[in-house]
Amino acid sequence: MVDEVILLDYWPSLFGVRTRIALEEKNIKFDYIEQDLCNKSALLLEMNPVHKKIPVLIHNGKPVCESLIQVEFIDETWPKANPLLPSDPYQRAQARFWGNFIDKMLPGLGKLMWGANGQEQEEGKKEFVEMLKTVESELGDRTYFGGETFGYVDIALIGFYGWFDAFEKYGNFSIEAECPKIIAWAKRCVKRDSVAKSLPDSEKVTELVPELKKKKRVE
Amino acid sequence: MVDEVILLDYWPSLFGVRTRIALEEKNIKFDYIEQDLCNKSALLLEMNPVHKKIPVLIHNGKPVCESLIQVEFIDETWPKANPLLPSDPYQRAQARFWGNFIDKMLPGLGKLMWGANGQEQEEGKKEFVEMLKTVESELGDRTYFGGETFGYVDIALIGFYGWFDAFEKYGNFSIEAECPKIIAWAKRCVKRDSVAKSLPDSEKVTELVPELKKKKRVE
Repeated sequence: MVDEVILLDYWPSLFGVRTRIALEEKNIKFDYIEQDLCNKSALLLEMNPVHKKIPVLIHNGKPVCESLIQVEFIDETWPKANPLLPSDPYQRAQARFWGNFIDKMLPGLGKLMWGANGQEQEEGKKEFVEMLKTVESELGDRTYFGGETFGYVDIALIGFYGWFDAFEKYGNFSIEAECPKIIAWAKRCVKRDSVAKSLPDSEKVTELVPELKKKKRVE
Repeated sequence: MVDEVILLDYWPSLFGVRTRIALEEKNIKFDYIEQDLCNKSALLLEMNPVHKKIPVLIHNGKPVCESLIQVEFIDETWPKANPLLPSDPYQRAQARFWGNFIDKMLPGLGKLMWGANGQEQEEGKKEFVEMLKTVESELGDRTYFGGETFGYVDIALIGFYGWFDAFEKYGNFSIEAECPKIIAWAKRCVKRDSVAKSLPDSEKVTELVPELKKKKRVE
């Protein structure tokens, strides 16, 4: 049986990027269906009735939700090409720990980007930079988080990279000045076809921000 | 080699309970070391330098943090007795989805228990009840979340059960009136030795709440 793989996604999504990269790493062909988040499709509501959010990965008609769960699912469903998680249980637990930690950066980023005032934005920036420095010290001098192998933790973090310019512009700071090793690592990641193909265009993301801010104020 | 397993924990922890139950399900002997969270031990700070939180599972000297990651680690390290996650990738993804969803109930519970005022507490209660109903509809008429087999999602949720009396007392509502199937399921779970041995005493948890509220106000 040929697998039918569909991804319901929204092009600037930090989360959707992760799933796109994991599918590319496994050389899985998939139908990408762009979603209008202001006018959610019947398919999205049917496939993710609990959260009603993208990305949703639909494999042979069955939905998998939450991007890091999708990455694990992709790795377990197509285990041969480019394993994304280590095989050792301890190393797997460490990878999951860092994936979970990276997701904990979101409240800070939310405040930085959509905060109600300058003070809240400053707090968010501080939280984000502090956490990114922790992630940077975990990376150390390795090529990727898993050593020489690109994998789960890299995918979790590189999803944010398409937004780095926007974070810098709206937070008025330089990520490279704060975390130079993270920027060097991101540039290595972008050399991979899977990443280059999947990341949204930074300029377009930055241009989109005022529109998203407006929508958030209206909601 | 005999495994050395140590759990750094705090008796009323919703999270620590999960790890205790998983270890009991696998018949793993472990040294339980109670932690004073007002005066964190050098061992806790060394083993979880990032979050400085319990529970920490130390396996042959190496720490694993975050309770649901510990449950997966325990399942992968001792796979033979009582598998906790299904073997099928799709079913595993579903189990992880519900574990993740259950953790998303925490902000609501935080507001319910530690909210600054009555309005915030009411909001928290509403959020919690709504999410618990979603979890209840996922359970449906099954014995456990995995069908006839007690596993990962049961462990994720039953950790909260020792606190149900406290939620009801401080939220002034009945969980059984809102979600009768969840209460019936919890009573089935408590019949398992692993759960009965691991859950904190509900009365003691309820008695502890005013002391915790006082500490939170001081912090």
